[in-house]
Amino acid sequence: MSVTDLVELRRDLHRHPEPAWREFYTTARIVEELEERDLDALYVGREALAETDRVGVPEDDELDEWMARARAAGAREDVLERLEGGYTGAVAVAERGEGPTVALRVDIDGLPIDESGVDDHHPAAEGFRSEHEGYMHACGHDAHAAIGIGVLDAVLDSDFAGTLKVFFQPGEERIVGGEPMANSGHLDDVDYLLAVHVGLDHPTGEVVAGIDGFLAVSQFEAEFVGTPSHAGARPEAGDNAMQAVATAIENLYGIPRHGDGATRVNVGVVEGGTTTNIVAERVAIEGEVRGDSTELMEYMDEKARRVLRSAAEMHGCEVEIATAGSAPSTHSDHELAGVVASVAREVDGITSVLESDHLGGSEDATYLMRRVQERGGYAAYVGVGTDHPGGHHTSTFDVDEASIAHGVDVLSRAVVELGSRRP
Amino acid sequence: MSVTDLVELRRDLHRHPEPAWREFYTTARIVEELEERDLDALYVGREALAETDRVGVPEDDELDEWMARARAAGAREDVLERLEGGYTGAVAVAERGEGPTVALRVDIDGLPIDESGVDDHHPAAEGFRSEHEGYMHACGHDAHAAIGIGVLDAVLDSDFAGTLKVFFQPGEERIVGGEPMANSGHLDDVDYLLAVHVGLDHPTGEVVAGIDGFLAVSQFEAEFVGTPSHAGARPEAGDNAMQAVATAIENLYGIPRHGDGATRVNVGVVEGGTTTNIVAERVAIEGEVRGDSTELMEYMDEKARRVLRSAAEMHGCEVEIATAGSAPSTHSDHELAGVVASVAREVDGITSVLESDHLGGSEDATYLMRRVQERGGYAAYVGVGTDHPGGHHTSTFDVDEASIAHGVDVLSRAVVELGSRRP
Amino acid sequence: MSVTDLVELRRDLHRHPEPAWREFYTTARIVEELEERDLDALYVGREALAETDRVGVPEDDELDEWMARARAAGAREDVLERLEGGYTGAVAVAERGEGPTVALRVDIDGLPIDESGVDDHHPAAEGFRSEHEGYMHACGHDAHAAIGIGVLDAVLDSDFAGTLKVFFQPGEERIVGGEPMANSGHLDDVDYLLAVHVGLDHPTGEVVAGIDGFLAVSQFEAEFVGTPSHAGARPEAGDNAMQAVATAIENLYGIPRHGDGATRVNVGVVEGGTTTNIVAERVAIEGEVRGDSTELMEYMDEKARRVLRSAAEMHGCEVEIATAGSAPSTHSDHELAGVVASVAREVDGITSVLESDHLGGSEDATYLMRRVQERGGYAAYVGVGTDHPGGHHTSTFDVDEASIAHGVDVLSRAVVELGSRRP
Amino acid sequence: MSVTDLVELRRDLHRHPEPAWREFYTTARIVEELEERDLDALYVGREALAETDRVGVPEDDELDEWMARARAAGAREDVLERLEGGYTGAVAVAERGEGPTVALRVDIDGLPIDESGVDDHHPAAEGFRSEHEGYMHACGHDAHAAIGIGVLDAVLDSDFAGTLKVFFQPGEERIVGGEPMANSGHLDDVDYLLAVHVGLDHPTGEVVAGIDGFLAVSQFEAEFVGTPSHAGARPEAGDNAMQAVATAIENLYGIPRHGDGATRVNVGVVEGGTTTNIVAERVAIEGEVRGDSTELMEYMDEKARRVLRSAAEMHGCEVEIATAGSAPSTHSDHELAGVVASVAREVDGITSVLESDHLGGSEDATYLMRRVQERGGYAAYVGVGTDHPGGHHTSTFDVDEASIAHGVDVLSRAVVELGSRRP
Repeated sequence: MSVTDLVELRRDLHRHPEPAWREFYTTARIVEELEERDLDALYVGREALAETDRVGVPEDDELDEWMARARAAGAREDVLERLEGGYTGAVAVAERGEGPTVALRVDIDGLPIDESGVDDHHPAAEGFRSEHEGYMHACGHDAHAAIGIGVLDAVLDSDFAGTLKVFFQPGEERIVGGEPMANSGHLDDVDYLLAVHVGLDHPTGEVVAGIDGFLAVSQFEAEFVGTPSHAGARPEAGDNAMQAVATAIENLYGIPRHGDGATRVNVGVVEGGTTTNIVAERVAIEGEVRGDSTELMEYMDEKARRVLRSAAEMHGCEVEIATAGSAPSTHSDHELAGVVASVAREVDGITSVLESDHLGGSEDATYLMRRVQERGGYAAYVGVGTDHPGGHHTSTFDVDEASIAHGVDVLSRAVVELGSRRP
Repeated sequence: MSVTDLVELRRDLHRHPEPAWREFYTTARIVEELEERDLDALYVGREALAETDRVGVPEDDELDEWMARARAAGAREDVLERLEGGYTGAVAVAERGEGPTVALRVDIDGLPIDESGVDDHHPAAEGFRSEHEGYMHACGHDAHAAIGIGVLDAVLDSDFAGTLKVFFQPGEERIVGGEPMANSGHLDDVDYLLAVHVGLDHPTGEVVAGIDGFLAVSQFEAEFVGTPSHAGARPEAGDNAMQAVATAIENLYGIPRHGDGATRVNVGVVEGGTTTNIVAERVAIEGEVRGDSTELMEYMDEKARRVLRSAAEMHGCEVEIATAGSAPSTHSDHELAGVVASVAREVDGITSVLESDHLGGSEDATYLMRRVQERGGYAAYVGVGTDHPGGHHTSTFDVDEASIAHGVDVLSRAVVELGSRRP
Repeated sequence: MSVTDLVELRRDLHRHPEPAWREFYTTARIVEELEERDLDALYVGREALAETDRVGVPEDDELDEWMARARAAGAREDVLERLEGGYTGAVAVAERGEGPTVALRVDIDGLPIDESGVDDHHPAAEGFRSEHEGYMHACGHDAHAAIGIGVLDAVLDSDFAGTLKVFFQPGEERIVGGEPMANSGHLDDVDYLLAVHVGLDHPTGEVVAGIDGFLAVSQFEAEFVGTPSHAGARPEAGDNAMQAVATAIENLYGIPRHGDGATRVNVGVVEGGTTTNIVAERVAIEGEVRGDSTELMEYMDEKARRVLRSAAEMHGCEVEIATAGSAPSTHSDHELAGVVASVAREVDGITSVLESDHLGGSEDATYLMRRVQERGGYAAYVGVGTDHPGGHHTSTFDVDEASIAHGVDVLSRAVVELGSRRP
Repeated sequence: MSVTDLVELRRDLHRHPEPAWREFYTTARIVEELEERDLDALYVGREALAETDRVGVPEDDELDEWMARARAAGAREDVLERLEGGYTGAVAVAERGEGPTVALRVDIDGLPIDESGVDDHHPAAEGFRSEHEGYMHACGHDAHAAIGIGVLDAVLDSDFAGTLKVFFQPGEERIVGGEPMANSGHLDDVDYLLAVHVGLDHPTGEVVAGIDGFLAVSQFEAEFVGTPSHAGARPEAGDNAMQAVATAIENLYGIPRHGDGATRVNVGVVEGGTTTNIVAERVAIEGEVRGDSTELMEYMDEKARRVLRSAAEMHGCEVEIATAGSAPSTHSDHELAGVVASVAREVDGITSVLESDHLGGSEDATYLMRRVQERGGYAAYVGVGTDHPGGHHTSTFDVDEASIAHGVDVLSRAVVELGSRRP
């Protein structure tokens, strides 16, 4: 596929941003492209995932609604059928000889952000602004998907000797897609895994060969349920979920820092109660804990659960705590990053190559990376710079489309180079 | 109107519960009835209210939606036009000679409660369950409206000498309708005001001649706005509205009790934040304060505002505080209640008459009562017992329709008796 | 004893204020006086109390220290021996015929308040300021003790027919003396009990015949013990008693108000931790809950304990909760108060007699009053007005000594009048 | 001084632990020793400090008390006179030729910890347990002082060419002595500064050449003052310092973590209120904030002050905030640490030499180190291992006295080696 076509593909996906487990149009569109390639295997939906590990799957009603939108947007019915139940994503496999198995992971989901319509927002100006109101590709995963196709084409067109697998992963933004894809079995023979992200405050022309500093993360949902009562006549008859939640929030932020490294805690969403004169029966929060290491994250998680339970107990409430998404910490292998760095320096348009950088956030690519690393393979998380006018996760985020070609060139050359190695 | 017709009217209104400032069908239906009577004046919508005092009026979109429903349900277009902008409610005036001016106040709005559909819920069994999903007459205001019409008919049919005014008040549940109706001018010449409520845990056949123990109340809405930031990478860059709200809630409940009498505080609704990994930019709460007296309520209100402002300041947030509904405290005049009690003892079906009872809640009828009392008149809040299977404000609340006739009889006789007095 | 002597006695006691279970000098001084009267029985210390019910008794070291002060101040050694172990207080009994048993209760303890030394503070000017630095009779119990002796003398000098018992009760300020004295058995045959308090914002010359509005009260001490750790190097290794206490305090004040009547909660004392860089291992608080009724107090107490336990649990701490003093609610019997009112109106210097007033605080005289009331007797809590320059429990509190004679006259006449009644 | 004498000196100091600005006996004892050496200058008390920078100096009463103890323990009166006003500590200067100026800093203060008396606590068994009840050398500063003397002797006895300055610093435990000594002027010509600490979980025979990971720290004292009121009768009349403090504590621990590095916050001490039935007028806390860098500490400090002020405002209180001790962050210069490491490897008894280690705590040696580093010099913080049975700051802490000789040997050799360098 030409660079022009990749840009067109990216714009098409940009028009149809879909959140976790609802990437119906996106997966279908990718599968249509993949079926035109000379592949040795193509795993779609349920075949690409470990079924038992999925969390955060929406209710059927909502899945149906997004499925209907995908259909209306022209997604192929036979592919959509394979995605029933919210099993999105795909894995493409091309076997080209005796060499090592090299994998590329790209993520494909969008965000619940309302895309800007202002004139100097490129997608608005060029007519490919999101057609799904309230949702947006505000993190570049549209470009990632295009890069995935582009790398596949470039490698198929090369003298690569080995097996290439491209993972089109759903649900990264909710950190729910990484674990089921990591446990699908498709990574178990991978020798080298490259993951890619555009932007991250690096300008067009800059490449980061191996990003580090992934915080392990675990998200939780906690629903406090007490007893309602009339706040004027019978305040004592209530078990106040509002007070329980306020106490929980205050004390969650007060979980002690840890001498071994960075930790984080945040309550990002709260919702509950019905009206001013009723002692609130039900209030729910969504939050997350993080740590420099998985152990530190688990320290925070354990403390958080104790706070939640005790706050409920204090106010006579029940609390149900569910783990939403999660991701472990990991690191980029430096030797592998070195390969990426050395090929990157040869690519036209790449003006700056950094060996490493510190992410300071979380990513469920770490599930895939650890899967490979634990079995003796190597993994690196590659940054491809792109000038982005608005920050990641803002309504004016956009990618410099020149970086799509950069990503394809750097990663496909790295794959070919790795193919030349004897594992 | 016959008792049977009053029951039919009540059921029609029951089918169409409408919340504050959206009582379009209800007002139109009442006006249609009133226009058939021999009245000396009929004030509708804007004419029945002091325009400047309205709070809690919904956005135009929502008003339009309810207006459309009213139209679809058969409300008369010419009446609906008079209610444009959410000016609901009506005042009917009948002058019948030289005697005193006697007023009756009934409230007409419904609640945002989903009505039960179970078989032993009478409205469901008899086919007059709410047709507005999520809304319900769960406090008997449908019966109140019917009683208002019934009293008017009975008095017109009597030898009453004086002026009768019937106030059909919107927005009691949100305590937003009382103040603008109290300040409309229509109460300024009233000598005696009777307000009525069915149920309140009194059985069919019981009447409470003058209810006391109204807590003054003031509702607030507070919106905290801080600065969002990435909770993993830049927790320090946020000004966390979530923490501000948690601190506010904890400290609102901690406002000191008062040696002079009962006080109340409740935060009934909370909502805010966007996602787990973003420090919350905006969180809003809705709450209320009460007091045995207006002074005690104002003590609570002042303390609450200080808590809200300081909690915002503590976390670098702005807070916007709005007063939603409010109602002062007041009392029933015992002499007037005595008149009600003495006529009630004569009414068929009334088996028990209590001189007074303690409400322990709030009601914006107090605005109207105080208006009359402050100008030298008398007011009483009359309870008409009704067997109600579910509690007030629950999905299985219902009225024993026999109490409609009780209300009409007790109140119309009281009006006639009062007409015989020289003010 | 002459009025002049009573004033001297009061000043002597004022010089030697002693807190709960340490009223060694005070008891000895009272016993010395009593032994000079023609009594039928005199119960001292252990004989005047139900031994098993005492709480709040200090450590031996502290008892020894106060015992030594009493000795140094000239208390009789043989009496002091009877008070060993902090068994303070006395009951004097005079049998004068067949009539009813009438009792008077006065309290005798002082407060941990540093008495003012300014010139216009009467005790300072007249040279009877407290000789126990940091302690003070700031609530008039010195005058109460003198009134107790004065009433005894006046009754012995009258034609009273019946039995008079005067209870000199220790430990009222800490509400620890009432229960053991109530359960001593000495009240079990009492027909009429009068308790007395001077001041309470009533001026000299005013008498309140039967005070009501006693809040039931229960005091608690809670000690949180966690695990210390270095706050810089190992913050996560601590279980922070400081955070547990802060959470407890915030939520104690947030215990819901009650629809049935007034409740109170206060945390009055906090102390703990060692230094800034150590996560606090131990923090203790002292507080109290109250209610209009004993049931309401118990509602608060139960909620408070849940808050304390959950706050400890939340932060991995243990909490030990002890009940310190307590007192039930009760009321003055109106018939008995009527007797007091009628004799008070005859007393020289009494210019105003109120039937009743609302205390709004707590008093462990209620233990004695309830003991009598539960066995069929009557009780009243009598207020004797006194101009007091500073408020109760402040360093400039003082009594107008004219009120001592008022108290003696009103109460002794009431005793004599009651003696004339057939129980 | 022989090793045996150094041990005796250490034990003498161990018997007389003295906290910040009260090191009267300790300074006098050190000065007596120093006066016996051939020094070129000896600065004592006020001469060794920048006078204006002292914080945390106790009241005169307390200084007098400690001065009296020092006198009673045999301190020389003429030296004590030079320490009047709590000006403790000393600087010894020996000029031995043209070489560089090398400095050693040792700290000399004790801790408010009650020393163990159990048999297997060496100081108790050997009869040199603390004679100041409640105070203890629980961090090895007694050994540090002895090492200071020992290094001076060893260098004077060597062919060292240059100037040696030994700083005997007061008040490290309260981090109040470092700043005034750093600003005294005596460090301004120092080329190399070595500071020393024994133990830190390193065993006897281990040396850490250059410790890093000093957290910047700032301690605060906050006193909240509100309005007292009777908690039963007039809860609303109080401005509750107890609630203000609880709110402050909860929110201090909730200050957001920082993406740039580690931060800390702790409230270590709380005290306030008078009795259970009084709304607390005054409650005070002592706490601290830290950061990986001085900037991070200042971020915490600014947030902490906002929390304190807003919590006071919320509850109608005033708050007075004072900075107690503080210390910046810094690092050991690796080149200088290299010199220490290389000489350490030559010392008898040293079996393990670590280039560096992470402290994870704070130390006000950093003030002295930064003073030197900012003027172009080099500094290193040297750890001398010692088997310590109890942890630092516990009642059973003790040093293995063999480590005194280790410290003397390592540091004196380093000084001599540095003297051979041309600055």
